[in-house]
Amino acid sequence: MVGKRVALIGSGCWGSAIAKIVGLNVLHQPELFEKEVLMYVYEEIIDGAKLTDIINVEHENVKYLPDIKISPNVIAVPDVVQACNNADILIFVLPHQFVKETCMKMASAVKPGALGLSLIKGFVLTEGEGIQLVSNIIKDTLNIETAVLMGANLATEVASEMFCETTIACHNEEHHDILSKLFQTPYFRVKVIKNVAGVESCGALKNVVGIGAGIVDGLGYGDNTKAAVIRLGLMEMMKFTKVFLDSEDNSVFFESCGIADLVATCHGGRNRLLGEAVVKSMKLRGWAGVDIRLLEKEILRGQSFQGPLIAKEIFTYLKDHDMLDQFPLFVAIHRICTREVDPRNFIECLRDHPEHMN
Amino acid sequence: MVGKRVALIGSGCWGSAIAKIVGLNVLHQPELFEKEVLMYVYEEIIDGAKLTDIINVEHENVKYLPDIKISPNVIAVPDVVQACNNADILIFVLPHQFVKETCMKMASAVKPGALGLSLIKGFVLTEGEGIQLVSNIIKDTLNIETAVLMGANLATEVASEMFCETTIACHNEEHHDILSKLFQTPYFRVKVIKNVAGVESCGALKNVVGIGAGIVDGLGYGDNTKAAVIRLGLMEMMKFTKVFLDSEDNSVFFESCGIADLVATCHGGRNRLLGEAVVKSMKLRGWAGVDIRLLEKEILRGQSFQGPLIAKEIFTYLKDHDMLDQFPLFVAIHRICTREVDPRNFIECLRDHPEHMN
Repeated sequence: MVGKRVALIGSGCWGSAIAKIVGLNVLHQPELFEKEVLMYVYEEIIDGAKLTDIINVEHENVKYLPDIKISPNVIAVPDVVQACNNADILIFVLPHQFVKETCMKMASAVKPGALGLSLIKGFVLTEGEGIQLVSNIIKDTLNIETAVLMGANLATEVASEMFCETTIACHNEEHHDILSKLFQTPYFRVKVIKNVAGVESCGALKNVVGIGAGIVDGLGYGDNTKAAVIRLGLMEMMKFTKVFLDSEDNSVFFESCGIADLVATCHGGRNRLLGEAVVKSMKLRGWAGVDIRLLEKEILRGQSFQGPLIAKEIFTYLKDHDMLDQFPLFVAIHRICTREVDPRNFIECLRDHPEHMN
Repeated sequence: MVGKRVALIGSGCWGSAIAKIVGLNVLHQPELFEKEVLMYVYEEIIDGAKLTDIINVEHENVKYLPDIKISPNVIAVPDVVQACNNADILIFVLPHQFVKETCMKMASAVKPGALGLSLIKGFVLTEGEGIQLVSNIIKDTLNIETAVLMGANLATEVASEMFCETTIACHNEEHHDILSKLFQTPYFRVKVIKNVAGVESCGALKNVVGIGAGIVDGLGYGDNTKAAVIRLGLMEMMKFTKVFLDSEDNSVFFESCGIADLVATCHGGRNRLLGEAVVKSMKLRGWAGVDIRLLEKEILRGQSFQGPLIAKEIFTYLKDHDMLDQFPLFVAIHRICTREVDPRNFIECLRDHPEHMN
């Protein structure tokens, strides 16, 4: 048996943390995997040098995950077609708005029978077609089976080897073992299940709730209020998933991708930071001074907040299906991001939540 | 129709916060409730004055909930028999180790047909009989129907009127409306369901997980690890509830008493503080210097940590049923509290959790 060749499509903070894990795991299991892992890096110039060159010399993504060494068998390449060439397992870890165009570039180069694995949080919104799962876009564009990996995995903590769990979902049980072996480490505990769409839905929706948690933090509320936002958010995540996927399977919400990722996101996530910053920014600069693009520049050093985009995708779906009144938390968060609602009125939007009707 | 007479049995921090809500709600609904609410207070002398006298003059529980005014129609009495005399609704809010002896004192004085409502977190462990639900002890000792109220309700935040939710459970649907009206306010949102035992089990078990969350905080882990502890704790809560109550109903874990209370407890609760203090105390004073009684004195000004007692109750049940290996988190926390396991080994106990078996 020849070892599987693995490629990484994407190299942000999370992509680099995953590159660290995957790089070492393929090295330690030569009977299962090829040693070389190509990693597609969107080329940038950092202090006059190419980011790919820096990564390949210093074995560190100095821009998005500084101070963390990536195994030298992970090779950064600026060409996505080169990266995916001959790969058996393609790990996608890009901002969700770039997935479709990236897949279209790759389409002719992907090996038939390859397995995709998406770590991407969000939906793809196409004018006239509504929202679609990222894994379906990958599957349909590349004609490959696509699994997902989601969990309570704040990237910098994973990179620091702090104990955590994750959830992989793959329809085909034959791939469960190899996926587990590609990612499992003593500090990164993998559970593999089958419900791909359910896991992916959790991973997208929790980012919206994270903004809500940040808003209550910014407003000075305590742990009870935040717990209520997390629970009401979870209820809306479950209801949305049920309607959107036509699925009654709630077990996925008990996995790491569900409640655990939601809790981590609402306490240490990037979108929580955004919610808090929106309130603080409003206090400092007034309502007209709140600008999400500006906050991204100030807080994220070039990374983006995925939450507002996802909130818009959900809002569009709910509006099209005439269901806005059943999702007051999602709707309020979208409208706060678009400055239609003052964040100080957030709690008012939750007071008579459908969940409180006896 | 004559208004219902309400009594409070207990007056700690949570009892006083509830007294504030109930006192105003009975006052504002004279068609439903009698104005006077007697509150049983375990008498203490504070700076030479009786605590009951202080509460009745200053309308404030200066020891357990300072700076929060309680409505003057709530009258503190030091005699539990007097407190419950002629009451239609008895609200129990005592440390769980005192519930049995208190009920025995009250037995002859309780009005037939009265409704009990327990806010008490924990089980009652009787030598030779194993553990029982507090609501069953109240029900059997007083021969009254007993409901429960549990939720993400850190007492000081409720007293400060920060928005939150709670869960009431009562078998008899006829009481649902009156219970909702007794507790609901614009900031305290009540959902009434029927699964009394499930709600009560959540309320007890989350305190044990809270200690675990404190331990990972003390050890310096981040949000991923804490989310994993919360999720693994939730899984053990669900499995324990299933075995202990012989119930397949998981819906209760999605209520405020379930996931929301667990999250609030693991971030702002008293037992989280204990877990963190155990680790810090060990770092400062060495293993021999860790003393939970001492930490109660230092941190809680006379209140008690309920978590270690509950961990012991659960441990006893699991040992008796030969199930210790299925609950590594509960077992590790109990053994850390009893100093059989070093808290620095806590994560090691979780690394091969049954939940991670694929």
